[in-house]
Amino acid sequence: MIKKVLKFGGTSLGSIERIQHVANIIKKEHESGCQLIVIVSAMAGKTNELVDLSKKITKNFNKRELDVLLSSGEQVTCALIAGALNELNLKAKSWLNWQVPILTEGEHTNSRIINMSIDKINKFLKVGVAIIPGFQGVSKNGDITTIGRGGSDATAVAVAKIFSADVCEIYTDVDGVYSSDPNKIPVARKIDKISYDEMLELSSLGAKVMQPSAVQTAMMYDIPLEVRSTFTNRKGTKIFSQENIDYSKSVTGVAYSRDDAKITLLGVEDKPGVAANIFEPLNKAQINVDMVIQNISSDQKTTDITFTIKREDLLNTKLILEKNNSIKYVDITYNDKVAKVSIVGAGMVSTPGVTYKMFRGLADESINILAISTSEIKLSVIIDEKNTLRAVKKLHTIFELD
Amino acid sequence: MIKKVLKFGGTSLGSIERIQHVANIIKKEHESGCQLIVIVSAMAGKTNELVDLSKKITKNFNKRELDVLLSSGEQVTCALIAGALNELNLKAKSWLNWQVPILTEGEHTNSRIINMSIDKINKFLKVGVAIIPGFQGVSKNGDITTIGRGGSDATAVAVAKIFSADVCEIYTDVDGVYSSDPNKIPVARKIDKISYDEMLELSSLGAKVMQPSAVQTAMMYDIPLEVRSTFTNRKGTKIFSQENIDYSKSVTGVAYSRDDAKITLLGVEDKPGVAANIFEPLNKAQINVDMVIQNISSDQKTTDITFTIKREDLLNTKLILEKNNSIKYVDITYNDKVAKVSIVGAGMVSTPGVTYKMFRGLADESINILAISTSEIKLSVIIDEKNTLRAVKKLHTIFELD
Repeated sequence: MIKKVLKFGGTSLGSIERIQHVANIIKKEHESGCQLIVIVSAMAGKTNELVDLSKKITKNFNKRELDVLLSSGEQVTCALIAGALNELNLKAKSWLNWQVPILTEGEHTNSRIINMSIDKINKFLKVGVAIIPGFQGVSKNGDITTIGRGGSDATAVAVAKIFSADVCEIYTDVDGVYSSDPNKIPVARKIDKISYDEMLELSSLGAKVMQPSAVQTAMMYDIPLEVRSTFTNRKGTKIFSQENIDYSKSVTGVAYSRDDAKITLLGVEDKPGVAANIFEPLNKAQINVDMVIQNISSDQKTTDITFTIKREDLLNTKLILEKNNSIKYVDITYNDKVAKVSIVGAGMVSTPGVTYKMFRGLADESINILAISTSEIKLSVIIDEKNTLRAVKKLHTIFELD
Repeated sequence: MIKKVLKFGGTSLGSIERIQHVANIIKKEHESGCQLIVIVSAMAGKTNELVDLSKKITKNFNKRELDVLLSSGEQVTCALIAGALNELNLKAKSWLNWQVPILTEGEHTNSRIINMSIDKINKFLKVGVAIIPGFQGVSKNGDITTIGRGGSDATAVAVAKIFSADVCEIYTDVDGVYSSDPNKIPVARKIDKISYDEMLELSSLGAKVMQPSAVQTAMMYDIPLEVRSTFTNRKGTKIFSQENIDYSKSVTGVAYSRDDAKITLLGVEDKPGVAANIFEPLNKAQINVDMVIQNISSDQKTTDITFTIKREDLLNTKLILEKNNSIKYVDITYNDKVAKVSIVGAGMVSTPGVTYKMFRGLADESINILAISTSEIKLSVIIDEKNTLRAVKKLHTIFELD
């Protein structure tokens, strides 16, 4: 018998009508003969509301108690879904973090799921549907823990792995992964099948459909995922390992982000240890450096180093660089009006000319490239922010994604 | 070292400001050198809100899941209070129903606390304050249970009993038990000391300060209670057993209720088993009969039977009586415009003339008495509803309670 994990996000559970709608989806899936474990998020907005309550008391709210507070959100949806299913004459039972139990390790508000007990729930699956709260667990000391925002995806994948489910379906408010942002690029298409790697590149670049670390776990244990909409009947996007996908196209999607800033250090002494001297203090301050480009400058004694960071970290980065006496440079420039545009595709590696095609396309639109970074399945450029959508549309067209 | 249980009701925890205020009260009590266990209700209105959510799904919401749903309310206040105390540099930790654990038996939504583990919490009390959710527990099967509305009082008394606390303080939105309803009888005084029995008679008659069954448990185990306001510094009302109270007055308070209805069966056959025939079907329908008065009628072959019920049960009672073929009577009258006024006092039993004084007082006000019922520490009369406040004021005055 097929065993499925279904995960429903907060928007899918945002009202009683939606909860009843979700109960109907579950019932239909159950009638098709599957064993089902359902993972639920808190109702849309609930976790933020609880965080706000804690912040009204103090910004340094005790983390153990914050976990007790936040975990109540999924407890509510667990009970409501179980009650709604019982009302549809489908046996269903909620299992809270300590009832499974979902064992975690690590710090409060940032734990990791390490194990759970499966026998009781497996027995129950023969007669009904088990409902489990996402985002939480219990430490070996018996304290409630949470596993970070968006953690319900991680719970779903962990449950799929530990219960050896055949598939993990992520129900959300979009109907799959798109070749680009459908709100901004009207010709973007829904992708039917995508590899874990591509999904990771697309999601970390802004396709925000699933939490990246949950995709990573699924990749590591080869758990088939499917992202689909709670609100339509359409097929979603299936996520597998690359070998299960036939690549007819070199590029799968075009992603972009507009929250980057670019920093260039001009005339940096060209000697060993310089890069380390620049990036070590940034790392200490937990500033995430994304792209790094180094060119040899004309005089061969100095070099220019360019890197990008999240725009919100710019002020802090400036302070750190300007206080840093261990690096010598002629000038420093900041640009917070840049965007990153990336083409992603597992087929790129076997298709010659993709890089040239991208640069040619941007040149045809007279868009200047400020920096370039490449990986196996991704090619990113930094451009002026104002050119973002024009660049994305052009690339979407020339790589035949429209 | 003195060990106290402090219980805070929903109104006392109705906002973040109030939660911070409660944290300050707890800190002050702790600084006075007491060990403290704090029992919390859900934020005011929260339990109703959750019940409403479940009712939108179905009126017959699965009771196991309803308990999971409702128990989340106190989980939230537990965490917020613990967080607020930590912010005041007072060590504090929440213990949820399954963490204590608070063992219950009985049906979902209507369980009883039977035991809890004390060692870990007693150890923690040496360094900090333990916060425990009211109203809930866990069954021996490991399911969450609740103990009925108003159950946080019952949790507080059970915790006081099982942890051998010296006193159980009930913090609420009134500053104690009054000699009558202070909203309607401006001359009503706060009572400093009252016996469990008197408290029970007053609370079941409308002084709604504490859940009656919690008072009964306190009486059974002789746990000193104190009802006091969260919002003022004034002393509250202490509740002990009778032998600890010096009665200077015969009457402690005057209570009333205006949600009664009176039914009189005229000319009922006067033979054994008649009363049973009347009340058995009412009992089956869970209609609570309060006062019962039977007079011999003039012809000595028939009798008149009068009884009172909650007004909301009147329609149902009518239907049952009129379908009942096993009783013969000449006529039946209903009156849903009646009130019950009672004088309560453990000193009554040793003071002659209380009954006469009450009847004389009502006669002086030309208030007709429709029925009378007496017990050891209470004397109740049924009168026309329109005379209620006049009767209460008169009795309050003549028994020197103003």
